[in-house]
Amino acid sequence: MSYRDDILKKISSKTVVVGILGLGYVGLPLAVAFAKNKVKVIGFDKSDKKVEAVNMSNNYIQDVDPAVFNEVVKNGLLTATTDFTRIKECDALIICVPTPLDKFQEPDMSYIESACLDIAKNMKRGTFISLESTTYPTTTEVFMKPIIEKTSGLKENIDFWLCFSPERVDPGNKQYKTENTPKVIGGLGQDAQKIALELYKIAIKQLYPVSSPRAAEMVKILENTYRLVNISLINELALLSGKMDINIWEVIEAAKTKPYGFQAFYPGPGIGGHCIPLDPFYLEYVAKGFNFDLTMIHTAGQINNLMPYRMMNKISYALNRQKKPLNGSTVLFLGVAYKPDIDDSRESPALLVMEQVARKGAKVIYHDPYISTVVDDNGHSYKGVDLTDELIGSVDCVVFTTNHSCFDVDRIVSKAKLVVDLRNAVKQVHIENDKVFKL
Amino acid sequence: MSYRDDILKKISSKTVVVGILGLGYVGLPLAVAFAKNKVKVIGFDKSDKKVEAVNMSNNYIQDVDPAVFNEVVKNGLLTATTDFTRIKECDALIICVPTPLDKFQEPDMSYIESACLDIAKNMKRGTFISLESTTYPTTTEVFMKPIIEKTSGLKENIDFWLCFSPERVDPGNKQYKTENTPKVIGGLGQDAQKIALELYKIAIKQLYPVSSPRAAEMVKILENTYRLVNISLINELALLSGKMDINIWEVIEAAKTKPYGFQAFYPGPGIGGHCIPLDPFYLEYVAKGFNFDLTMIHTAGQINNLMPYRMMNKISYALNRQKKPLNGSTVLFLGVAYKPDIDDSRESPALLVMEQVARKGAKVIYHDPYISTVVDDNGHSYKGVDLTDELIGSVDCVVFTTNHSCFDVDRIVSKAKLVVDLRNAVKQVHIENDKVFKL
Repeated sequence: MSYRDDILKKISSKTVVVGILGLGYVGLPLAVAFAKNKVKVIGFDKSDKKVEAVNMSNNYIQDVDPAVFNEVVKNGLLTATTDFTRIKECDALIICVPTPLDKFQEPDMSYIESACLDIAKNMKRGTFISLESTTYPTTTEVFMKPIIEKTSGLKENIDFWLCFSPERVDPGNKQYKTENTPKVIGGLGQDAQKIALELYKIAIKQLYPVSSPRAAEMVKILENTYRLVNISLINELALLSGKMDINIWEVIEAAKTKPYGFQAFYPGPGIGGHCIPLDPFYLEYVAKGFNFDLTMIHTAGQINNLMPYRMMNKISYALNRQKKPLNGSTVLFLGVAYKPDIDDSRESPALLVMEQVARKGAKVIYHDPYISTVVDDNGHSYKGVDLTDELIGSVDCVVFTTNHSCFDVDRIVSKAKLVVDLRNAVKQVHIENDKVFKL
Repeated sequence: MSYRDDILKKISSKTVVVGILGLGYVGLPLAVAFAKNKVKVIGFDKSDKKVEAVNMSNNYIQDVDPAVFNEVVKNGLLTATTDFTRIKECDALIICVPTPLDKFQEPDMSYIESACLDIAKNMKRGTFISLESTTYPTTTEVFMKPIIEKTSGLKENIDFWLCFSPERVDPGNKQYKTENTPKVIGGLGQDAQKIALELYKIAIKQLYPVSSPRAAEMVKILENTYRLVNISLINELALLSGKMDINIWEVIEAAKTKPYGFQAFYPGPGIGGHCIPLDPFYLEYVAKGFNFDLTMIHTAGQINNLMPYRMMNKISYALNRQKKPLNGSTVLFLGVAYKPDIDDSRESPALLVMEQVARKGAKVIYHDPYISTVVDDNGHSYKGVDLTDELIGSVDCVVFTTNHSCFDVDRIVSKAKLVVDLRNAVKQVHIENDKVFKL
């Protein structure tokens, strides 16, 4: 039997063993989705802590259903390990590691490279490998394939198959989870595509095949570039609107009544999370190799880079109206999660604003019901404070940086001396009054 | 009785007389919508030809229902005139004149100014005036109001009322016409808002009030800036994708499977029509008065300005593969309308590409089933040709510039020597083959 037929047979009989590299926001829900469907999954991670948590079914990802997680660990379908030599036990490997940007805004490919090396050193012939990490188009073919071929001595499309299938995890989304979000599949060659579709079908309800890994890579970048560009646009328009005595939130609600051709984006202190601030810049990076300038992404990046300073200025101007300088004032930030009602502060714009305000000599404190401590880019650590009436009344300025739905806005506004509202939390104020200033 | 109560009574009894200034794509459908609802409408236009056409119920706007048009003219509810002194017969005036950009991309306010002067010289006390022309925020309050007050000697909010209500006409849209597209209403002051809502309610199904004319002005700009920015983004990504051997249309279809947070835009030879290429630049213009640079709009404008040259280059590169220069080649353009299945070539990007190709010495001809002649920006006039097999086979290159659904793409491709497809008309070709080249 050929390797191809062998793995297809294992998939159809659900005797396939799936290895998932990286047990974070993407990998753990995917591992649970396969295991839930009676497929044996081995989770690989370099972190002892994560591996231990999985094996004790201690859930650390908000979007994973704890009951299902508990069940698949208990019945042995999902186990985790730091021992990457166990890759040889797997028939299919799915890479779900991060791809951060380095200090110079260039893609840090070290996690993908390390995963490829671990796979190349340990895999058996006939292994299917899928990459889910967001990265620049051509990564699967031009970056990944040579590393694996060179290290393993095996041949792509003969001894192993490659695929790119972008993760579409949206933390906190109540409706769309791993299993019911349509998944784009870009196998390298027909055999890889066939195996990919059969395998993912086990865990994901709807698959959408495209002609190549690079097309699939571009899909994810397009989705998030669209978001970056539109958030940056509305942030820029919000800043102008403030100067023109126009309430941008009112304008957006009115524009939404157009029944076609419009999608609403909302302004805020900047873009956050682990996708939108990063993904478009992978594309900008690879475009340079084609002597091509992506001017829209570049401009959006410029707007976003300036937002923390502009927000610091807003806070400074508001304090100035009350004849107070930033230096020596106490500023309380409400919400450090990068979006409402989640516990994730990765790339949160709130942190960048806090950093700038602290740099100007203000005492910075924060409250977030979902996040008890945060560390900013300079390694400075903050511990969240309780939101008492006394505290609200004592600080010089309260800043809404995340609109968690649990915030009692009326109470906060009534107790505070000064409010800077970067999220339209205070609906009843049009643009500003003596106490409340909006972005 | 106060002027306010007087006009409200006339509206409720439908004895109000509505004057509409400008009988084009916006004004004529609106005039018909009021007249259809048993309100007397006088249409004003400087063009004898248009006025005559209306009075003979010769329809010249694709989106107007000819039967309804005929009916309202026959029963005398809609008449048209070039005599602007008849403005004094009207209780409410709605301005639907164009606001083009001049050669230096600055708003040409002369049509609005002229309408304001005609109104100021002729209106009676107690007149309601609404502007629908897209323009920069603050126009109604800062540009229009002083002109009317100064010329008429009357006072806004006492002797007359002002409102801004943006037109949302989308030529060729089968589902959303004037009457069933929600309409944003921004009266200046509470009385103006009350009168505006009561009046427009006669003709429009759903109204959405906002707090000021400037908010309403910003709504329309936001809607079209969103479109400009996203079309420019996808055009830039399309150009990069071509270099990276990625089919951008395949990528867009795949991205559309994301069930939230994405709206698809499609690449093409540039942006066209009477809104998207213009509206955002009104805002860029007024922003300069606030010392504010709108970098996203500026960048989008740059991409769009370059598109005709880039498309000319595409055509030149395609001919070059067949060892032909542009100079002396015959290039047949298919479609000069700015979007599919309409008869409107205003600001059509096809014309700009044709102009560039002609400038390089090619013989340019075109076919469009909806448009028999066009004139480019330099006043050069083209007459459409018939699309015979013989013609297709005889030209050096066929270019798809508009994807009219009636084009028999297979036939055209089979007969042509060379095809440059700027609209994804040729679905079965991935990126290019020997004969077909895609954007």
